[in-house]
Amino acid sequence: MDFLEELKTLKEQVLFRERFTIDPEKYDNIVISGMGGSGIVGNIFSELYTKKPVIVVSDYDIPEFANDRTLFIGISYSGNTEETLSTLKQAEEAGCHIVGITSGGKLSKTNHGIIKIPRGLQPRSSLGYMLMPLINSLLPVSDEERISTSQLLAKIDSDNAQLKTLAEEIGRKQQIPVVLGFSPFKWVAYRWKTQFNENSKILAFSNFFPELNHNETMPYKGTYRKDIFRFIVIGNPDNEQIKKRIEITGNITGTGFTYLPDEGQSTFEKLFALIHKGDYLTYHLAHYLNVDPTDVSLIEELKRKLGS
Amino acid sequence: MDFLEELKTLKEQVLFRERFTIDPEKYDNIVISGMGGSGIVGNIFSELYTKKPVIVVSDYDIPEFANDRTLFIGISYSGNTEETLSTLKQAEEAGCHIVGITSGGKLSKTNHGIIKIPRGLQPRSSLGYMLMPLINSLLPVSDEERISTSQLLAKIDSDNAQLKTLAEEIGRKQQIPVVLGFSPFKWVAYRWKTQFNENSKILAFSNFFPELNHNETMPYKGTYRKDIFRFIVIGNPDNEQIKKRIEITGNITGTGFTYLPDEGQSTFEKLFALIHKGDYLTYHLAHYLNVDPTDVSLIEELKRKLGS
Repeated sequence: MDFLEELKTLKEQVLFRERFTIDPEKYDNIVISGMGGSGIVGNIFSELYTKKPVIVVSDYDIPEFANDRTLFIGISYSGNTEETLSTLKQAEEAGCHIVGITSGGKLSKTNHGIIKIPRGLQPRSSLGYMLMPLINSLLPVSDEERISTSQLLAKIDSDNAQLKTLAEEIGRKQQIPVVLGFSPFKWVAYRWKTQFNENSKILAFSNFFPELNHNETMPYKGTYRKDIFRFIVIGNPDNEQIKKRIEITGNITGTGFTYLPDEGQSTFEKLFALIHKGDYLTYHLAHYLNVDPTDVSLIEELKRKLGS
Repeated sequence: MDFLEELKTLKEQVLFRERFTIDPEKYDNIVISGMGGSGIVGNIFSELYTKKPVIVVSDYDIPEFANDRTLFIGISYSGNTEETLSTLKQAEEAGCHIVGITSGGKLSKTNHGIIKIPRGLQPRSSLGYMLMPLINSLLPVSDEERISTSQLLAKIDSDNAQLKTLAEEIGRKQQIPVVLGFSPFKWVAYRWKTQFNENSKILAFSNFFPELNHNETMPYKGTYRKDIFRFIVIGNPDNEQIKKRIEITGNITGTGFTYLPDEGQSTFEKLFALIHKGDYLTYHLAHYLNVDPTDVSLIEELKRKLGS
C-alpha cells in the first residue's frame, strides 16, 4: 500500500468498533504508555477525557503512584517498542489493570486484554485504529457521528488542493512550520509537527495558546530569523479569550498567521478533520521536496544500533 | 534591581523554607495551575514527584475529575494571571482543597492557604521561591543539600565565562536553539527554551529523549535549514539507553550536539545548576544581541488589549 492509500484508510478507521470492557469507576487514575505515532494517541485522548487523571508516559518508567487502582493502557503499533515494553513490565509488577493496543509483536503475545489492529500501515497512519478503542470504551460516540466524520474525511481525501498549494509555498520558501493549537487540540498541533518531521523530513515545532503568550510571543516580533518560520494556527476556538489572544498576538507582533480552519460540528469531527488536514499538508510537502514520506530508515538504524 | 542581580538571588531562593501543612495521603491527585514562568514550576515538580498523579493546567479550565479529594495548587507570581484565577474559581466550585503561591494580587487576597513570596522580581527569576514550597511540602531536601546547592549556584554566578562564549557564538551565527533534555529534566529543557524566548527575544524550541527519536530524529539529517539550528543537550543521563540514544542520534544524523553537562551529585543540585546555566546563557545572549532581558512590553500590551 503506498502512503496516499494509507492516508485514505482514516475514514474507515473512525468506524472501528473494538472496545475494552472496563469500568472506569474501578480506577483512581489511568496511565497510557506509548511513543511517537502510538504515544500521541494517549496525549490526544488525555485532552478529550478528563473524568480521571490521565498520565501519558513516553519513556521507560511508569510513575510511582501506579498500583492496583491504576488502569494501564500500553499502545505500540509494532508491539515491540522497547520503552513501552519496559513500562508494561513495571505495570505488571505494580499490579495495575493492564490492557493494550497493538498490531502484533511481543505486546500481542501477553495475556492481558489486547485489542489487535490491522497490520501493514505506518504507525502514524493508524492513529484512528489506536484512538478509537479508547474513545469507544470511555467516551463513546454515536453511529451518526462516526458516519458524518467518515464522510468529512472522504471529502478531504477527494479535495485537498488548498493544502497542496500551501505545502508548495512552504517548500519553495524552505520554511520551518510552527503549528499553534489550543484546547482541546493542543496535541493535534503536536501531531502536525511530528507529521512534518516524519513525512516531510523537515524540522517543525508546535505550541499552544494561551501558554505561548507567556513566553514565545516576545520573539514573534523577532530578533533574528523570524522570516524563515511559518506560523500556522489550526482550528477555530470556541473560547472568546483564546480568539482574542490569537488576533491580538498576530497584530502586536506583526505576524501573519496562516489559519487552517477546522471543519465539522462536534469535537470528534473537528478532531479527525484537523488531523487529516495535517496528514495531507505534510504528504504534499514530501512530494514537493521529492522525499519519501514512508522512509523511516534513520529510526530503524537507531533501533538496530540500540540493539532493540 | 537589574536582571543580573535578579539572577543572583537564586542561591538564596533554594534556602527558602516556607511550606504548606498538607498530608498528601488525604488526596487522590494534585492539580497545579500556572502559566509561563509560574506554570513551569508545576511542570518541573511533576517530573520529580510521582507519588500522586499531578496534572498541570496552563489554561482556563480545570479537569472534570477535580473534586474534594483533589489538592489544587495555584501559582501566579503577580497573583493576577487571568487563566490561573479562572481555574481557581473552578477549583473552589469543585470543592478542591486549595493552596496558592504568589507575591501579591488577587490570589494573595483569597482566604486559602497562601504562601507569599518576595515581590519585585521577574516571575521567571523567582522559580526557586515558587518551587521550594512544593519541594519543602512534598519532597523535602536536607539542609546539607540546600547549602551545597546554594554554593553550586554561587559558583555559577562567579564563573560562567563558558556560557558567555557559547551565547556569543549562537548570537553571531544567528542560530535557533533546540534544547534537548531527558527525564527528570525534560521540563528544564522547556525552561531554557522559554528563557531564550523571554530574555534573548529569539525563537527557540525544546524536546526530549527518547520521544524525539520517534519523530524529530528524521529531519536531524536535514531536508533544509538544519544548519541554522543549534542543538543543545543538557545534563548527563543516568539511564544507559538514553546515553546510547543521544550518542547514536548524533552519529547517524551527523548532528554535532553541544553538550551542557550537569553539575552536583543529587537530583536537586543538578536541577538548579542546569536551570541556572540556562539563565546565564540566555542573559549573555541578550547582552550580545543588545536587547533588554527584562523587556516584556509585548506581553503587557497583550494583557492590556485583552482587558485583563
